[in-house]
Amino acid sequence: MLLIGDELLSGQTQDSNLAHIAKRLQECGIRIGEARMVADNTDDILTALNHLRKRYDYVLTTGGIGPTHDDITADVIAQAFGVEISHNEEAVRRLEAQYTGSNYVLNESRLRMARIPHGARLIDNPVSGAPGFMLDNVVVMAGVPEIMRAMLEHAVSFLKGGTLEESRSVRVHLGEGDLAAPLRQLQEKWKNVRIGCYPSFSDGKPSGVRVVLRSNDTTALESAFKALLGVLREMSENVEILQRKE
Amino acid sequence: MLLIGDELLSGQTQDSNLAHIAKRLQECGIRIGEARMVADNTDDILTALNHLRKRYDYVLTTGGIGPTHDDITADVIAQAFGVEISHNEEAVRRLEAQYTGSNYVLNESRLRMARIPHGARLIDNPVSGAPGFMLDNVVVMAGVPEIMRAMLEHAVSFLKGGTLEESRSVRVHLGEGDLAAPLRQLQEKWKNVRIGCYPSFSDGKPSGVRVVLRSNDTTALESAFKALLGVLREMSENVEILQRKE
Repeated sequence: MLLIGDELLSGQTQDSNLAHIAKRLQECGIRIGEARMVADNTDDILTALNHLRKRYDYVLTTGGIGPTHDDITADVIAQAFGVEISHNEEAVRRLEAQYTGSNYVLNESRLRMARIPHGARLIDNPVSGAPGFMLDNVVVMAGVPEIMRAMLEHAVSFLKGGTLEESRSVRVHLGEGDLAAPLRQLQEKWKNVRIGCYPSFSDGKPSGVRVVLRSNDTTALESAFKALLGVLREMSENVEILQRKE
Repeated sequence: MLLIGDELLSGQTQDSNLAHIAKRLQECGIRIGEARMVADNTDDILTALNHLRKRYDYVLTTGGIGPTHDDITADVIAQAFGVEISHNEEAVRRLEAQYTGSNYVLNESRLRMARIPHGARLIDNPVSGAPGFMLDNVVVMAGVPEIMRAMLEHAVSFLKGGTLEESRSVRVHLGEGDLAAPLRQLQEKWKNVRIGCYPSFSDGKPSGVRVVLRSNDTTALESAFKALLGVLREMSENVEILQRKE
């Protein structure tokens, strides 16, 4: 993931796109390997993009494809791949359709949103018309969550997923440090199950932990989870199994 | 920023640390240049850390310093700097003080939290005892927001800030595309003021934009803001000046 926008780094906007995309991609059997947040700055976007697109199967970007001066993502993508960028006929047609009969004028600034790197395919935007696009292994989406979510539903149809990963999780009123040794043993036994342990605090005091097991090997997952429950129930009377999907 | 933890990339946990840290650092005249989120994986942490610590004045990390098997941050930091890591006397003393009289036992797993790379200075943790640390230009904090926030208050005393950046912002019921041309002109005129434009949507329709001006040159900021207000008031009767700090 490459999240683009000054507002994310200034703390002015709290990103919510990453979590949504992570969950949606998991349903397709795709795991996010790394996420980067950069400012609306050509060099920063270029450096991050070139690293990520070479290292991972896909890169999904959010932000920087609106009509204003700080929206430079499409141009930087074109630059990264060394292709031309210009007004895309189909994208212009979609903007015309969107603005016909609206209170807004399809001026030159708005038409900039139809500038698409050559060779890219469009990603539908049922919310505000201006499309995203996919070029090679890079998926380019809007930053506004409502628009991003709508684009993502189309974009996932372009992506090839792997095996679905499943998770099982449990909450228990023990300290993280009490669980550390048994969890380490379980992790050593079931190497293809990823075991995470997440403490919560209230009023500055530990208020229990959530243990999450993840794997795309269902048999291993169930065995590890059974073993985990056995261990936890020996340690506490208060073991709460959480919903399968969280 | 380097945010460490599988749970961030799986969408299971929604990060809120970045926005808090960004705002707090701004008060010290420090701006976040880039943020990366990586899994609890030695190679990924090492690669990101080595890049960031060479490129930026400071790197702040969150996550991976608890007592469980997936808490590997301190070890990776030691590895990155090529220094030893072992139980720090002062850190052990703090943990002993924290656990004395509590319902929890200071077992071997919890004592792991007192392992600190040699040469680092400790960062206080008034919430749960186990300290963070700063080694060279790298600040290492917990991922649990309550603990991170407490640590950050101590950590900022180690950091040297720059000129304070101020912001002015305004909300107006216009389309982003209507503002694009005048904002571009303002940006060209006031090059040391960063102008951002953030649209909001409700029910799939644009519901106005927020324009934010930022600069550490107060005179330029005020002039640009005055010019912006002039432009906006010609275009709309509905211009709302927002609080100075947001």
